[in-house]
Amino acid sequence: METPKMETIKSLESKVRSYSRSFPTVFTKSKGHKMWDEEGNEYIDFFSGAGALNYGHNNDVMKSELVDYISNDGVTHSLDMATEKRAEFLQTLNDVILKPRNLDYRVMFPGPTGTNTVESALKLARKYTGRTDIISFTNGFHGMTIGSLSVTGNAAKRNGAGIPLTNVVHMPYDDFMDGKTDTLDYLEQFLENGGSGVDIPAGIILETVQGEGGINAARFEWLQRVEDICKRWGILLIVDDVQAGIGRTGTFFSFEEAGITPDVVCLSKSLSGYGSPLAITLFRPELDIWGPGEHNGTFRGNNHAFVTATAALNHYWKDNAFEQSIKKKSKRTHEFLQELTKKYPEMKGTVCGRGLMVGISSEVEGFSEKVAEESFNKGLVMETAGPDDEVFKLFPPLTIDEEGLEKGLSIIEESIKKLVKEPVTQ
Amino acid sequence: METPKMETIKSLESKVRSYSRSFPTVFTKSKGHKMWDEEGNEYIDFFSGAGALNYGHNNDVMKSELVDYISNDGVTHSLDMATEKRAEFLQTLNDVILKPRNLDYRVMFPGPTGTNTVESALKLARKYTGRTDIISFTNGFHGMTIGSLSVTGNAAKRNGAGIPLTNVVHMPYDDFMDGKTDTLDYLEQFLENGGSGVDIPAGIILETVQGEGGINAARFEWLQRVEDICKRWGILLIVDDVQAGIGRTGTFFSFEEAGITPDVVCLSKSLSGYGSPLAITLFRPELDIWGPGEHNGTFRGNNHAFVTATAALNHYWKDNAFEQSIKKKSKRTHEFLQELTKKYPEMKGTVCGRGLMVGISSEVEGFSEKVAEESFNKGLVMETAGPDDEVFKLFPPLTIDEEGLEKGLSIIEESIKKLVKEPVTQ
Amino acid sequence: METPKMETIKSLESKVRSYSRSFPTVFTKSKGHKMWDEEGNEYIDFFSGAGALNYGHNNDVMKSELVDYISNDGVTHSLDMATEKRAEFLQTLNDVILKPRNLDYRVMFPGPTGTNTVESALKLARKYTGRTDIISFTNGFHGMTIGSLSVTGNAAKRNGAGIPLTNVVHMPYDDFMDGKTDTLDYLEQFLENGGSGVDIPAGIILETVQGEGGINAARFEWLQRVEDICKRWGILLIVDDVQAGIGRTGTFFSFEEAGITPDVVCLSKSLSGYGSPLAITLFRPELDIWGPGEHNGTFRGNNHAFVTATAALNHYWKDNAFEQSIKKKSKRTHEFLQELTKKYPEMKGTVCGRGLMVGISSEVEGFSEKVAEESFNKGLVMETAGPDDEVFKLFPPLTIDEEGLEKGLSIIEESIKKLVKEPVTQ
Amino acid sequence: METPKMETIKSLESKVRSYSRSFPTVFTKSKGHKMWDEEGNEYIDFFSGAGALNYGHNNDVMKSELVDYISNDGVTHSLDMATEKRAEFLQTLNDVILKPRNLDYRVMFPGPTGTNTVESALKLARKYTGRTDIISFTNGFHGMTIGSLSVTGNAAKRNGAGIPLTNVVHMPYDDFMDGKTDTLDYLEQFLENGGSGVDIPAGIILETVQGEGGINAARFEWLQRVEDICKRWGILLIVDDVQAGIGRTGTFFSFEEAGITPDVVCLSKSLSGYGSPLAITLFRPELDIWGPGEHNGTFRGNNHAFVTATAALNHYWKDNAFEQSIKKKSKRTHEFLQELTKKYPEMKGTVCGRGLMVGISSEVEGFSEKVAEESFNKGLVMETAGPDDEVFKLFPPLTIDEEGLEKGLSIIEESIKKLVKEPVTQ
Repeated sequence: METPKMETIKSLESKVRSYSRSFPTVFTKSKGHKMWDEEGNEYIDFFSGAGALNYGHNNDVMKSELVDYISNDGVTHSLDMATEKRAEFLQTLNDVILKPRNLDYRVMFPGPTGTNTVESALKLARKYTGRTDIISFTNGFHGMTIGSLSVTGNAAKRNGAGIPLTNVVHMPYDDFMDGKTDTLDYLEQFLENGGSGVDIPAGIILETVQGEGGINAARFEWLQRVEDICKRWGILLIVDDVQAGIGRTGTFFSFEEAGITPDVVCLSKSLSGYGSPLAITLFRPELDIWGPGEHNGTFRGNNHAFVTATAALNHYWKDNAFEQSIKKKSKRTHEFLQELTKKYPEMKGTVCGRGLMVGISSEVEGFSEKVAEESFNKGLVMETAGPDDEVFKLFPPLTIDEEGLEKGLSIIEESIKKLVKEPVTQ
Repeated sequence: METPKMETIKSLESKVRSYSRSFPTVFTKSKGHKMWDEEGNEYIDFFSGAGALNYGHNNDVMKSELVDYISNDGVTHSLDMATEKRAEFLQTLNDVILKPRNLDYRVMFPGPTGTNTVESALKLARKYTGRTDIISFTNGFHGMTIGSLSVTGNAAKRNGAGIPLTNVVHMPYDDFMDGKTDTLDYLEQFLENGGSGVDIPAGIILETVQGEGGINAARFEWLQRVEDICKRWGILLIVDDVQAGIGRTGTFFSFEEAGITPDVVCLSKSLSGYGSPLAITLFRPELDIWGPGEHNGTFRGNNHAFVTATAALNHYWKDNAFEQSIKKKSKRTHEFLQELTKKYPEMKGTVCGRGLMVGISSEVEGFSEKVAEESFNKGLVMETAGPDDEVFKLFPPLTIDEEGLEKGLSIIEESIKKLVKEPVTQ
Repeated sequence: METPKMETIKSLESKVRSYSRSFPTVFTKSKGHKMWDEEGNEYIDFFSGAGALNYGHNNDVMKSELVDYISNDGVTHSLDMATEKRAEFLQTLNDVILKPRNLDYRVMFPGPTGTNTVESALKLARKYTGRTDIISFTNGFHGMTIGSLSVTGNAAKRNGAGIPLTNVVHMPYDDFMDGKTDTLDYLEQFLENGGSGVDIPAGIILETVQGEGGINAARFEWLQRVEDICKRWGILLIVDDVQAGIGRTGTFFSFEEAGITPDVVCLSKSLSGYGSPLAITLFRPELDIWGPGEHNGTFRGNNHAFVTATAALNHYWKDNAFEQSIKKKSKRTHEFLQELTKKYPEMKGTVCGRGLMVGISSEVEGFSEKVAEESFNKGLVMETAGPDDEVFKLFPPLTIDEEGLEKGLSIIEESIKKLVKEPVTQ
Repeated sequence: METPKMETIKSLESKVRSYSRSFPTVFTKSKGHKMWDEEGNEYIDFFSGAGALNYGHNNDVMKSELVDYISNDGVTHSLDMATEKRAEFLQTLNDVILKPRNLDYRVMFPGPTGTNTVESALKLARKYTGRTDIISFTNGFHGMTIGSLSVTGNAAKRNGAGIPLTNVVHMPYDDFMDGKTDTLDYLEQFLENGGSGVDIPAGIILETVQGEGGINAARFEWLQRVEDICKRWGILLIVDDVQAGIGRTGTFFSFEEAGITPDVVCLSKSLSGYGSPLAITLFRPELDIWGPGEHNGTFRGNNHAFVTATAALNHYWKDNAFEQSIKKKSKRTHEFLQELTKKYPEMKGTVCGRGLMVGISSEVEGFSEKVAEESFNKGLVMETAGPDDEVFKLFPPLTIDEEGLEKGLSIIEESIKKLVKEPVTQ
């Protein structure tokens, strides 16, 4: 039976709603890795706002600073006017993140969401190079506005556009051909051959680990070769780090371990730390050829987000303790998943991903969706990914404690155990 | 001399920044219609976050509820999962706003910014009709992502795209031909004539009062005729009420007095009440043909914004007292501006706009920019609009008190008085 | 009853065929302004191959030269290799047509049809200016390949594309607003206003008299103002003279009397003189920035067409006798049509066109089609034009003798007389 | 020193001219496989009008019928009106070509050139399926108008468009990856994977042997697999047989030996037999959903071409003697080329092609161009192909006699012999 609040949502909200279908309950409170619904049920969160809550829900480090700021009538909304908190955020980002990593980037506030930063990156690449095409990769996911949707692979999402999506060439991501061939041979042949019909693009956009596309982690050599290709042809390398960034793979940026330096980086989701909308686009100073206001947006000055983002950077990223702890949890999680695939061969599973951006891809049609559904029944919030929802996707908060992590993992195992016993029918 | 914080912004932020150039100081606090910078200077705000702060800064009605919600660890970020505060917002919107106005709309959360709601509206119109073109109007402004930018008129913004902007036909807005002809004769002739080259569009998108485009208010007859044209040809009428909505013109929706009922309405900016990112797309139930998740986004569940939006609706819109007060202030402001144009014929000014979305368009090149600049020096924050920045634009909070309003108006007059005395040189 | 040959066509040819429906008989021979079908019926031709037979059928001036050339094994097909006849054609075109008119144009062979020359002109304008949009006019007709179709107005033809037609803005042709306003006021306002959404185009393409679009003749002042606008904004003026050129309006080029000098001119149809495929694109030498082979095509070297084209230029255009004769016939035809509209007010007709490119536009739905049909029954071949086929269109060979002209005119009058007596029913 | 006629061409024709640069002499007469210039020099033609002169120059079989037809004032130009010669051509095509090959096709006259037939095929595929994309292959060449250019691979040609070329996905042709992988594995993976970003297309267009793209002959298994893929996904298979058709590969259609049946076939070039412009589009009757006149064109009724085309079909294709003779010459030519590559390893050559559509691809930069140049000096007309002109291309008339063939081959060998002796310098 529906509660009145769920009734309200079902009757007034558009059919486009989706997560309130997968997780059919009304949430009221949340803290760290836990959520509670209106009936008091507790859930462990292995979803983390699709990567927007890497520091967990309502993290106390940021909470008090946010409440203080609001209580003292700090500027809330400021477009791109100069504010104290904007300046502090910029300085902290530079001091705590960019400089120690030897990155010299200008910071653009393109609007507060992932698709805003992607759109600004595509514009800049086209403006800077004078070329029109962008190369993106199979199963890439970059956003729902027309520019970002054009570089997104998912057919169902693309179909929503209602117009042809143009000025983009989709190339095979690492392992798209199941290891039978290096997919960059293919890409490079298209660029080299003057009769290929693929024009030299303005930019190449990629996620180092594809989130929505199925938790596909590109090999570091593959990423390095993409960087080489970009340099060779004067193509801008754009890393969309909206989902994989801010510690999710074990380092602040997901590309650090690969040793590459993108020309443009897109950040959002966990950037604000507390779940508030915030996005930035980073790029090399030479690329900063924008005219004033050439790209703009009303919510470029979400000062609440500046406050929490600054607090998060200061608290978690000044030394490497946080990174160490992520790596430890990653190791545990990967080993657990590897073991699962061996213990339950019926699910025909393969472990995928990197850091705490991991999952199991099951060849059994519908299986991963059932794991997520059953886990929810047992008190775990977790989603699926991939073009056929063939992956169940573990996205715990990076700050989760050992107890929480283990409890979540055991719910998953219990769900699988139950499911492999019953015949899967479609 | 720059303060260190302004230095930070100048050195680290991209050249795309704009308002920190017009208002070159670092703001720290704000309340109601006032803002303060780090040096303690006080400013009257006739800008209101470009329409995102219609209830003023840090409005106490919402502030306490927001602080309570945060303090109690209410869910902050929830994508489109069901939450208590999402349900309350939906119910309140329906009870306080839609039902009393006899509007039967489904509510879509398309992502939290203006451009997100516009993109979702364009997609829906195309999907529903199976047609590809959208008609938009000269000097319309709808956002910076590729779909929204395509329906935007401003050449400088369009130029940032780096690709041709397609699937849109730009038609003359009301009075684009200076009253010499009814511009809808032109539009209608294009639709009627089978050889015109203009295909019947999926939708027509418009602002009833154009904000960025120069504070152009369409006549009600013109709007009614657009609605008739849409009905005749099966075209969806999309009102982008992002800037003109939420009371700015004197009623909740800007189209109420014109007596039209759009098929789709785009809302954002002041919707959250407190300046936090929030946007919704409203449409007739028959149009709700979305598949689950066909359009999505990470920040569709900004519960802080749900809390303040609900508070604002409950506090300001349950009776018509607020509307009455806006009308009173509008009347005063219009009369003041009319008088100004008579008193200072040197500025060759014409009053434009509707409600508290007003300004003076000056034919003297560069004059309006100088008025805004001089007013800032005297402690008033105000921006310009129009393709050549020929309009200075009064956007006080709707909640401003008489004293604040009069003080702002007198600063404007003083600035003009000073400027008409000195020869304007470019 | 169908003849076997008509049966063959009906069963084997695609449903896309059209003129074999309007003129349902099988033609075998033709000469001057006459055609005969397989049953020996004689027809007067007021159609002239839609403007491809301005010198009449199988003109003896060219015929003997063509037969000689073929008999002597002159090169038939040569792509764009140098041949004797290509050189002679170029030299004659320059000496007989261009120089005496003070026109300094380079000649491009873009492929042998109208749409080839239009596509080459659009490419060149975009390449030369670095801009992407083309402005074309309502009811313009420029061809069926995607580039040309994009600048064509007709909805039914456009619908055949199966994709959105982009990078074009359609502006109102002269008198599109029924004289209520100068349509160029609109065009100019769109170009001047930086918020109009209409980008400065690479080129403006137009027909001085629209053939397919309804025999609409632009006023000379209108054409002159278009030329001024082009100069002011650095836009290339492209005159598509495929149907109106080669004497059809009384001068070799249709724009001569308007006193304008296009940057680019498209010629085809009657250029070869004998009905063989031939087209050229003319442009100012400064615009000749093509790379070798950057645009090409197999049938750029139709030497049979060079032979007859050269003969036609030498025979008809070395003095002004031919032009005088066209003017005389034009005058007679216009007067006749004017009288018709007075004598038969039931048809609510308006005379339209210029030179021997004329017709009557009837406001009575279906009337013009009936006139053409009835005339065919009486032995006259004539087609209709306009988005609703509201115009019957007189296109006699320019070489027609007085007897032929009068006989054709009298058939038209008889047909009208018959039709106005019977009630028109749809 | 230039002759006056060459001077005329150089001074009056646009810089876009190309073959008059490769073959810098003025041709006057031609017969069979021979051409003569104005100075009386004789050339052997291994170019055949880029495939438009498969029956040789001024073939006597057609010549007398053409001269008779013209002398008797047969209709020359008829748009798509029914004429005796149109009917005869249709009947002959059906009786001599289609029926014996068990092909049930409707015939469309889309305008007289290759690009016209390709544009009509693309329109039809999009219209029939309601989809927008077309898949074409690397190094495909389909024409210069925007629709055809979009499916063409060559970067220099594409660059002439001046606008982005959209609604097309370029996939790797057979052996594009140098045999390292079956390129259709890629294509199929893109279609199967719902996240690939490649939408299911309306049609797949290909040449069975790529002419301009470098004389690449697809394997029959590859073609068969393309056909299977098309059937599986409801994609229309369009074979562009403009250059490879009409006997060039040894059979009338180039796809006969592969055992596939395209949904749509594009024919032009040698179709008219005599070098006059003529093109047709063939498709399955179910696809014939065109409206009357939905695609049209002035030169769809080139009756001179109908006369010669009919004569050619009747003379050459009623039995298999012609096919046998082509095969014999093909065998000789292939063996000769194979031997050449062995005898002159310095040219690092690989034999490519099928039937009498053959060449040698040399890895030595600039070598093939020099072979063509040197051969011209020795009296042989031959062109190069491929994105870097790396192939010299043998295209003798299919009717060439043994003596002519041997003479041409020996000129090639002499040229190579000379070139391998001198150091190649760029």
